Amino acid sequence: MADIWLTTLVTATPQEGFELAITLSRRGVKYTQPDASVLKQLRPDYANSAEALTAASHVIATHFQTIAAANDYWRK
Amino acid sequence: MADIWLTTLVTATPQEGFELAITLSRRGVKYTQPDASVLKQLRPDYANSAEALTAASHVIATHFQTIAAANDYWRK
Amino acid sequence: MADIWLTTLVTATPQEGFELAITLSRRGVKYTQPDASVLKQLRPDYANSAEALTAASHVIATHFQTIAAANDYWRK
Amino acid sequence: MADIWLTTLVTATPQEGFELAITLSRRGVKYTQPDASVLKQLRPDYANSAEALTAASHVIATHFQTIAAANDYWRK
Amino acid sequence: MADIWLTTLVTATPQEGFELAITLSRRGVKYTQPDASVLKQLRPDYANSAEALTAASHVIATHFQTIAAANDYWRK
Amino acid sequence: MADIWLTTLVTATPQEGFELAITLSRRGVKYTQPDASVLKQLRPDYANSAEALTAASHVIATHFQTIAAANDYWRK
Repeated sequence: MADIWLTTLVTATPQEGFELAITLSRRGVKYTQPDASVLKQLRPDYANSAEALTAASHVIATHFQTIAAANDYWRK
Repeated sequence: MADIWLTTLVTATPQEGFELAITLSRRGVKYTQPDASVLKQLRPDYANSAEALTAASHVIATHFQTIAAANDYWRK
Repeated sequence: MADIWLTTLVTATPQEGFELAITLSRRGVKYTQPDASVLKQLRPDYANSAEALTAASHVIATHFQTIAAANDYWRK
Repeated sequence: MADIWLTTLVTATPQEGFELAITLSRRGVKYTQPDASVLKQLRPDYANSAEALTAASHVIATHFQTIAAANDYWRK
Repeated sequence: MADIWLTTLVTATPQEGFELAITLSRRGVKYTQPDASVLKQLRPDYANSAEALTAASHVIATHFQTIAAANDYWRK
Repeated sequence: MADIWLTTLVTATPQEGFELAITLSRRGVKYTQPDASVLKQLRPDYANSAEALTAASHVIATHFQTIAAANDYWRK
């Protein structure tokens, strides 16, 4: 992937940080499976599986830890 | 999602922090599957599965780490 | 849940901290499935499954990280 | 469990810390399933499953993070 | 593996850090299964499985935590 | 296990730290299943399973977090 998609972990608000965590989670998938058509095809598999959605939420939580620390938890 | 749902990680008590961790866990799911009717349909799948409930509890634990750190563990 | 069940992460000993980690793990499950009768029914599923017990132990380990940090690892 | 089994996270060496991490992992299982005869019966299930052994190793790794931090990584 | 492939965790940008996290994730696999032909054969298994892709993304997230901390979150 | 196999978490380079993380991951398995012949027998199970290899890589990543922190991320 030659495009620039991540230049900073700093966000204005925790919610933007959460959304960045989602972006990172998805990027982790895309680096492993870059074919967008395959990803689209797989979407029903996890978007309709409680287990897969929980696993996706876990990855987001892991990235959110990193991003929250990077922003000093948006404490002030 | 255009609504504002997360403006701070600071909470008055650890219990409120725990409840915020639950909110974050659920939001992680909702961002991946925004269709509330699908989520409702999936609910019996995980609410009646020991494995799925444990996995959900794990995501909550991960978010609670972040929130506890953000609150300096509510030490005083 | 209107009851107050978590007012501090500080414990006198690491063992009490470990037991609090267990409480948090179970609370994570209860918030997702508040029906005690369902939980009771699920109990044999995970209490007799090596995989489920290991997963439960993992959640406890995650909460114990948080609680140990909150107590500065009971260093003195 | 009325017995006292955890009074400190401080260990003399990293290896002792690793072994304490194993103890914590097993305790997490025992608190959930206190019946030793059931645990003994489940042992072949995970001791002969690559997946279960890896999951057990993951829990140990999580506890080892906590214990290593508690010992300031045995740096001196 | 006699080759030198990891000399620093410091990267110029968060994106390079993310890409290093992917490298570490893959190396973790390669150390366990060094046979490139087997890995190639397994590729369709996980590149076409929503669950496997999410698990891979989780490993990347874990390594990214480490690398982000190593770079002080690229804060300045 | 009476042998001494872990005396320090300090390594000269990140790569050596990564290799130590692999050692710790394997030790976590060996403590649970000390029988080398069983482990040898299980090897094909996980060395040829994409899911198991990813899980093994996750454990390595968790230990690498600990070791990287112990080495202050080999920053200088």
